[in-house]
Amino acid sequence: MTDYRRLRVALLGAGAVGSQVAALLRQHGDELADRSGARLELAGIAVRDVDAKRDVELPRELLTTDIEPLIVGSDIVIELMGGIEPARTHLLQAINSGADVVTANKALLATHGPEIFDAADQVGAQVYYEAAAAGAIPIIRPLRDSLAGDRVQRIMGIVNGTTNYILDRMDKEGSEFADVLADAQALGYAEADPTADIEGYDAAQKAAILASLAFHTAVPLDAVHREGITGIDKQMMDSARHAGYVIKLLAVCERLADVTDAAESISVRVYPALVHRDHPLASVHGANNAVFVEAEAAGDLMFYGAGAGGVQTASAVLGDVVSAARRHIAGGVGVGESTRANLPVVPIGHVTTRYQITLDVADEPGVLATIAGILADGRVSIATLEQTVAGEDVETARLVIGTHKALEQDLSDTVDRLAASGVVARVVSVLRVEGD
Amino acid sequence: MTDYRRLRVALLGAGAVGSQVAALLRQHGDELADRSGARLELAGIAVRDVDAKRDVELPRELLTTDIEPLIVGSDIVIELMGGIEPARTHLLQAINSGADVVTANKALLATHGPEIFDAADQVGAQVYYEAAAAGAIPIIRPLRDSLAGDRVQRIMGIVNGTTNYILDRMDKEGSEFADVLADAQALGYAEADPTADIEGYDAAQKAAILASLAFHTAVPLDAVHREGITGIDKQMMDSARHAGYVIKLLAVCERLADVTDAAESISVRVYPALVHRDHPLASVHGANNAVFVEAEAAGDLMFYGAGAGGVQTASAVLGDVVSAARRHIAGGVGVGESTRANLPVVPIGHVTTRYQITLDVADEPGVLATIAGILADGRVSIATLEQTVAGEDVETARLVIGTHKALEQDLSDTVDRLAASGVVARVVSVLRVEGD
Repeated sequence: MTDYRRLRVALLGAGAVGSQVAALLRQHGDELADRSGARLELAGIAVRDVDAKRDVELPRELLTTDIEPLIVGSDIVIELMGGIEPARTHLLQAINSGADVVTANKALLATHGPEIFDAADQVGAQVYYEAAAAGAIPIIRPLRDSLAGDRVQRIMGIVNGTTNYILDRMDKEGSEFADVLADAQALGYAEADPTADIEGYDAAQKAAILASLAFHTAVPLDAVHREGITGIDKQMMDSARHAGYVIKLLAVCERLADVTDAAESISVRVYPALVHRDHPLASVHGANNAVFVEAEAAGDLMFYGAGAGGVQTASAVLGDVVSAARRHIAGGVGVGESTRANLPVVPIGHVTTRYQITLDVADEPGVLATIAGILADGRVSIATLEQTVAGEDVETARLVIGTHKALEQDLSDTVDRLAASGVVARVVSVLRVEGD
Repeated sequence: MTDYRRLRVALLGAGAVGSQVAALLRQHGDELADRSGARLELAGIAVRDVDAKRDVELPRELLTTDIEPLIVGSDIVIELMGGIEPARTHLLQAINSGADVVTANKALLATHGPEIFDAADQVGAQVYYEAAAAGAIPIIRPLRDSLAGDRVQRIMGIVNGTTNYILDRMDKEGSEFADVLADAQALGYAEADPTADIEGYDAAQKAAILASLAFHTAVPLDAVHREGITGIDKQMMDSARHAGYVIKLLAVCERLADVTDAAESISVRVYPALVHRDHPLASVHGANNAVFVEAEAAGDLMFYGAGAGGVQTASAVLGDVVSAARRHIAGGVGVGESTRANLPVVPIGHVTTRYQITLDVADEPGVLATIAGILADGRVSIATLEQTVAGEDVETARLVIGTHKALEQDLSDTVDRLAASGVVARVVSVLRVEGD
């Protein structure tokens, strides 16, 4: 056995991901040493409760509730506690005590990323976070390194497995949201409190991380426009299917060019959107994730895989641990985040997309002309229009309008005017169309 | 403008990729400086003929035929000459003169990889080659870094755009190979001499590179089993479609476990294979590439994009240039290739897959029993069997046999015995089935 240099590794957190990381570190120790050039010694595992029941058995003598002594003197600290505090404090302690850090903590990076990256820069440490967006799918290195010489124009990501699972089942089975959610909770695909997933908070954190990397800009979480999927019902799904689309919760990160002054800005948004059945993202089923990247030179790329899961995410964490070990052996300081472009993030009203507007309208002559007039006045141009025989009651007809690209603000104002026009009985739904 | 450290970049080769690299380096100079922390100064472009016509205009004063003085004193050398010599000599010169090197040269890496990586290790330089497999698709960093803590079980790659374009059109149009090839040549999707693509040489080079990374083993090119697509005809395509498959040229890199002694080995092979229509690889159309990775912890991953093209490949090259620049700024030595696993590569006869065997057999009683007997004797187990009314002449029936997993050697011997059995008029085709 080669006599490798020893590196002391501290693991903070032994939940679904942490326990798998601990198990794999021990199980594949020789192999990881051969690959990294260092023997990775798990010095301890910080847990809240040493006696808690765990899916994976961990050696009792490694468990500790005393975090600081574990961190001090470690070469690599793996933070898998989740949440903001005390994770933030311990991550900063680790960095300041000279360790490289590996984290899967998307909430922390999306809210305190710049603080953490700055701290690492100060001491020449490196922050690794491949597991913080899209779980096991390698997307951080591709954006951070492989595409660093290109210009990313747009990212469309299915980055939350729970919502994709729910929407996929609604699409396949023609079921209602509440029924599928209840079933997903029973099956373990959704949490007892599903808010973070179904309201898009989780996806928004990942969107902030992906946009920061893609556009070399520190994107604050509160600049991410966020809508969840709780408003999506069977009727919308059926209507989408009928028109050749499927509804997906998308994290969209987009570079916008102002034609008048050539200044660039970006938009980062999470919402359910119509995706054409021919688009590669439409065939991402179940709880899988995929990130579709449009780059100026590279063209269209897609990264696909399991977005979550303990052992899957552990794969990404261990890849980072090997990278950190290799960097320790190679020497040199850490490579900081690239945020010098620092593009402004525009509010949702400035974004241009296509829309599908579904209206129940009075079934009488002249109504179509009135509606077309309101749309034209609002600078919303009609691409397709379909009238179905009846809306929710017999007096109304249902109108499905596909628009050309329109400004969100214009569209929103126009929908308000439609609702107040007297000829529209009900605005059934307004959905964005992405990806074509 | 920030006063960045200046790095001297030498570009060897100004073909389809090189000219785009030169153009993008100059066009996006400020942006690349912000991202890499270094001003990348293109010191010169080595070409064979300064006066040759080029698609992209390059500043005359940068062009030179005098390579050595250009290399000496450069911090980063980009080798895009292609071929073995003089590329090998110049790459080694660059490494030995202290430069980091970026190359897209798959032929060179597949044949002289260990020599080049060793030379880099000696001086602490780094070799970057994201563009050497699957063009613009970030696959090198995911395998080298993101999955470095995981165990890759299998890679199935569509890594040659020309052959995928041809097979995809044959599948869609029901055309014959020769007709589509001629058309592909006319349209620029295939070279005037298409041998490297259609005989699988290009895919085999990429397979050697991917397998080396995935299995931490220096895989020599001559250990890669290689078959091309020239034998694929309309009848095979039709028969595949009928059975729910599509034929793709696959680069398969597989970890094999010997159940008796727990010793591991790997198989690296390129051949046309049946892929089920439900598999993500089946929907890779046109000249696109995709690499499907099955990893022990991460599960199934897929990386998709344009596999070739000047500007697309330039994206991967520039990503490497930015990485090299960041490394120069960060300090430290290069991280060598991980090849300590050094698993043996087994010959094709040791590989186990499923097969589809198509036979024209005498249309008379007892024939099926004879054939079933020969298969059973050869340890080839039948999974599906379909008899179509007639083979190529009226005396024969066509038999399409789907097998369970069988050893290639057993299968091959069995097919020989079938051919010599007297009841088989013709072995129409034998194709492997991959991915399920």
